[in-house]
Amino acid sequence: MTSLPGAPAARGGIDLGGTKIEAVVVDANNKLIGSARRPTPTAGGPPDVAAALAAAVTEAAETAGVQPAALIGVGVGSPGVVDPDTGAVSSARNLPNWEGRYELASELSSRLGTPVSVGNDVQVATNAEFELGAARPYKSVLGVFWGTGVGGGLILDGKPWVGRGGAGEIGHVVVEIDGARCGCGRRGCMEAYAGRGQLEERARRRVEKGRKTELFKLMESHGRARLTSSIWARALDRDDKLATELIDGAVRALGAGIASAVNVLDVEAVIIGGGLGIRFGEPFAQRLAREMHPHIFNDQPPPDVHVAALGDLGGAIGASLLARTW
Amino acid sequence: MTSLPGAPAARGGIDLGGTKIEAVVVDANNKLIGSARRPTPTAGGPPDVAAALAAAVTEAAETAGVQPAALIGVGVGSPGVVDPDTGAVSSARNLPNWEGRYELASELSSRLGTPVSVGNDVQVATNAEFELGAARPYKSVLGVFWGTGVGGGLILDGKPWVGRGGAGEIGHVVVEIDGARCGCGRRGCMEAYAGRGQLEERARRRVEKGRKTELFKLMESHGRARLTSSIWARALDRDDKLATELIDGAVRALGAGIASAVNVLDVEAVIIGGGLGIRFGEPFAQRLAREMHPHIFNDQPPPDVHVAALGDLGGAIGASLLARTW
Repeated sequence: MTSLPGAPAARGGIDLGGTKIEAVVVDANNKLIGSARRPTPTAGGPPDVAAALAAAVTEAAETAGVQPAALIGVGVGSPGVVDPDTGAVSSARNLPNWEGRYELASELSSRLGTPVSVGNDVQVATNAEFELGAARPYKSVLGVFWGTGVGGGLILDGKPWVGRGGAGEIGHVVVEIDGARCGCGRRGCMEAYAGRGQLEERARRRVEKGRKTELFKLMESHGRARLTSSIWARALDRDDKLATELIDGAVRALGAGIASAVNVLDVEAVIIGGGLGIRFGEPFAQRLAREMHPHIFNDQPPPDVHVAALGDLGGAIGASLLARTW
Repeated sequence: MTSLPGAPAARGGIDLGGTKIEAVVVDANNKLIGSARRPTPTAGGPPDVAAALAAAVTEAAETAGVQPAALIGVGVGSPGVVDPDTGAVSSARNLPNWEGRYELASELSSRLGTPVSVGNDVQVATNAEFELGAARPYKSVLGVFWGTGVGGGLILDGKPWVGRGGAGEIGHVVVEIDGARCGCGRRGCMEAYAGRGQLEERARRRVEKGRKTELFKLMESHGRARLTSSIWARALDRDDKLATELIDGAVRALGAGIASAVNVLDVEAVIIGGGLGIRFGEPFAQRLAREMHPHIFNDQPPPDVHVAALGDLGGAIGASLLARTW
């Protein structure tokens, strides 16, 4: 890649989440030079999502003083099943009417006038931590992104490991045979106890049965429609009993599930990201390490556990790394 | 490697198990040309085990018409923690008085007059299936060896994956938080429900509480001191209720635990070996695949499941592959 004088070799990166779209523009040294955020469309279909992605990266490029067509490329981290060759996305169940296959890379590329590459959202966030963030000192890493769901990404021997395309589904490690029903329809998955979506459902059911909690009052007083990561953090700060109980259960499930993956892979480090992981921060990461420890087989020493260093923008920055090959 | 006329470039391989030592001699094409078996010493210490290993491979070499010193090398698959550089073995808890470190490779090499290399027993058995057995068609494989314990080995992108030296501990994937006590001292491990050692303990406790079973009568009438794989198979053939119940529980735990590992790694195939895995054979492997299926996230299609093709000698043949580098 050559960078002409005056041409900043800027790249775009987009993190396509179930609730929001985060777009960044970085320079050749991966330094952030622009960003934008907008809500993910809740109606319509894949073309509407593609339009929102184009608008977000265009806005981020404007804040960086670059034309979108002048970007050397744009990377997208997407949920669902991503075809790495074509950049098509299928089964993105958190997005509106996105069960089938949609040629996201080529559609977005023609809107923007620059090449577009698409990767799995959690894997690109793990790559970002490996190249630029908390996982830089290591060659084998498990990234765990704890938010609405619990996703995982792997770096083994310095390279991403995606298996047949579906690796890293740590949220669906079984921690209780015939246990709680997960959002995926299966039983006993770690995510059934730890995912923010399932935690909210469980809190609602307990309230219906008469349990008291500040959770939903905090949600309303902060003008939210969902129990966001910061609502959970506020409730814990107030020693809300139900919130404490549910997060304790989540940490127990995360400890067992992550330790199971570590026992199979024996990685050097575990990086905790995602909305809840980042909101709770380093003290929580150390609590999680203690919760994992009794289950870890090769504990001489156990793997290091750190919070993702790139924060909320890690997904978008990781996506921008996909755009380096042009 | 050059093979002089009359010198068959024969190699030795030894599988060092908790109850028996299996030794083979193979030619340059990995064809079996000699074998021997003897019990693992139950008293003494590492030097006594080394003497028994030397005697076993000497006997195998004799059946092949080769002097031990004429072998181009000998490989050993060992339990415990193996130092791949020196061939020292530590913490081999199933072997007599083998808590500390013992220089197995150099000790055995001076006894035999030929180079000796040592690897992890389960990983060499997985390598054997990958190079010569049921996993030949695949590039990513999880080997599961179901016997006294449950061990695992990994091939990722055509190469063994050992992590920091302790990968593949699939027996200690957590399938029930705060569940049954495992032989390792932890709780809820897959091995606590599926390992032959734990199954026997559970059977004994049930009998003490008055449960009826043919298991221990069969053990005595076949002159065994333990519930071996073939005793379990015979009890199942007779529809023994306790044996059926315990093996059902083992299969449920194996299904959940192996599926958890598959959800993280998304390998192409799972190979089932070990005493129980081989004794129960292909119908059991297909039953296990059905038990895994409800937990598998990327099930389009699920990974293939096969029985180890090299049978009881897979560990020793895999060990002989370690001796190829001279």
